[in-house]
Amino acid sequence: MTAVDPATGTCPVPLPETERVLLGHGSGGRLSAELIDEVLLPGLGAAAPGGPLEDAAVVTLAGSDLVLSTDAYVVDPLFFPGGDIGVLAVHGTVNDLAMRAAMPIALTVAYIVEEGLPIEDLRRVAASVGAAAVAAGVPVVTGDTKVVGKGAADRLFVITAGLGRRLPGAAPTAAGARPGDAVLISGPIGCHGITVLSTREGLGFEADVASDTRPLHRLVADMVDAGGLNLHTLRDLTRGGLASALNEIAAASKVGIEIEESALPVPEPVRAACEMLGLDPAYVANEGCLVAFVAPGAAEAVLAAMRSTPEGAEAVRIGVVHDHGPVLVRTAVGSRRVLDMLLGEQLPRIC
Amino acid sequence: MTAVDPATGTCPVPLPETERVLLGHGSGGRLSAELIDEVLLPGLGAAAPGGPLEDAAVVTLAGSDLVLSTDAYVVDPLFFPGGDIGVLAVHGTVNDLAMRAAMPIALTVAYIVEEGLPIEDLRRVAASVGAAAVAAGVPVVTGDTKVVGKGAADRLFVITAGLGRRLPGAAPTAAGARPGDAVLISGPIGCHGITVLSTREGLGFEADVASDTRPLHRLVADMVDAGGLNLHTLRDLTRGGLASALNEIAAASKVGIEIEESALPVPEPVRAACEMLGLDPAYVANEGCLVAFVAPGAAEAVLAAMRSTPEGAEAVRIGVVHDHGPVLVRTAVGSRRVLDMLLGEQLPRIC
Repeated sequence: MTAVDPATGTCPVPLPETERVLLGHGSGGRLSAELIDEVLLPGLGAAAPGGPLEDAAVVTLAGSDLVLSTDAYVVDPLFFPGGDIGVLAVHGTVNDLAMRAAMPIALTVAYIVEEGLPIEDLRRVAASVGAAAVAAGVPVVTGDTKVVGKGAADRLFVITAGLGRRLPGAAPTAAGARPGDAVLISGPIGCHGITVLSTREGLGFEADVASDTRPLHRLVADMVDAGGLNLHTLRDLTRGGLASALNEIAAASKVGIEIEESALPVPEPVRAACEMLGLDPAYVANEGCLVAFVAPGAAEAVLAAMRSTPEGAEAVRIGVVHDHGPVLVRTAVGSRRVLDMLLGEQLPRIC
Repeated sequence: MTAVDPATGTCPVPLPETERVLLGHGSGGRLSAELIDEVLLPGLGAAAPGGPLEDAAVVTLAGSDLVLSTDAYVVDPLFFPGGDIGVLAVHGTVNDLAMRAAMPIALTVAYIVEEGLPIEDLRRVAASVGAAAVAAGVPVVTGDTKVVGKGAADRLFVITAGLGRRLPGAAPTAAGARPGDAVLISGPIGCHGITVLSTREGLGFEADVASDTRPLHRLVADMVDAGGLNLHTLRDLTRGGLASALNEIAAASKVGIEIEESALPVPEPVRAACEMLGLDPAYVANEGCLVAFVAPGAAEAVLAAMRSTPEGAEAVRIGVVHDHGPVLVRTAVGSRRVLDMLLGEQLPRIC
């Protein structure tokens, strides 16, 4: 059932035409990667840049390394402990820029609104966008607003794009991890995903935990100061959590990664919620946490720089890079298990 | 019922909290302007730049005038004669950049997909995005994909953002129109809106008319060559059509505008459809048509440059700028009527 695509003249994908998009295609895991690799990128054809895909792209212009990024937010509920869809949209795009060591210069924001949304909800979200942008030190320079009929969208989607400029002396990329690199994490994992899930489903965990959403660019600036070009890879842990980020980096860098389970910073409320819900915290989404892959000689200096910031106060070293192999977790009893990429959808509409 | 906004400390809007978003808030007309001025901009607060709002914003960086823009596309149907949602998304953002005399450097694309969308539809749209970007000569450098549950979106929304660089020697802005300026239009109006409406409702007009969607940046480059700084204002005629564009320019430039009805290029199928449907072609959406406000001494040269391009082959002069007053249309019999801004929603989900 391969059909030649009239726009590209190629027939890259053997999927039958009856196949449909699943929730898991938006998980940030393996199905997402398949959708991108087999449908979206082949569609782009010559319009797509070469090299591994990243959440933000470097565009060199007149001697400056500019960085561009975009994110669509569809989180349900719109408001939750620690943030809302507007805050997430600003932080997510600022953080995607920061993962390329870029400081934000300007943001754009687009709203897709369902007819009937209380104006007050839109006002709250717009105020959150504004407050988050001011706090991050970046202007929102233009935008777009569309309204669709009742039932054609679920209340409100917010889509941001960001322009940033890369700090001199840094070039982190998903493909940059090297054998021997230390794997550092900036703080506790799982708070955002558990908060959103619990708020949506009324599970009650949200009394003890709040989203970790925050901008990470100032943390990154300090890390660049301390590590420079020894900062090989930065990745914020969003959809698909730590596990998906590590697997994407391992694949892009063609390396193996080994993590110490006992070193993973999992807050007690997250651990309790994950146990009750049968979730692995390594797959739960975050919005204010990053992993860094750092040359071994610079790891202590970078870790110290991270710990001196509010965003990285609880930073720890969690593992090491091997020259090949899967992403492994060494458990407290010394056994190893593979930490695979999320296959489908664990927690839909978490961001 | 004014409430102090905790994020901004201000209480700018007397709308009751029970007020809800209407379809007309997305029309590009007066209700859209109210939503932006009373809800979205006050929310942004200090994060918003000063000055009149434009579809694309200039960001000066290291001596270069960069331009940023974003657009959300929710058109229904996804596919229609002359284009589809992917083509529109690319052209729309390229054109928003072009209206600031910027040539596109890079695009981003975000998809919000409803669970259950045929993969084949997504593949077609992605191929359209790619083909349109290649044809416009701009790479798509990064993106994002979200999937929401069945019923939480209507099939597919596409959101693009664009980075461009302004051509030297040009600075068109919505606030730049001056008394005496000639008003030029690049081609026929109404094709896109009538095509989409007719396809969606099965009215049959789409047999005789197709969307005019096309990139306008090469036309603009030729206009800049011919007119330079005499090119005071450029605006593509999208949602709300010619009437809304003229009213926005009149308001931003604090001028009056007078248009000759007999000079308006309305194709016969559009005229026929508008008569049957009770629509005014001046309010119908376009996706490949611009108006230019040009200093009188340069108008003939700019018009000649426009006519020498495929996109502007049917360009004509349609009016003149006055120092004050409303937007007026002089009819064939010599009377004048006010061409007001669209109040609510004429044709929902046209782009």
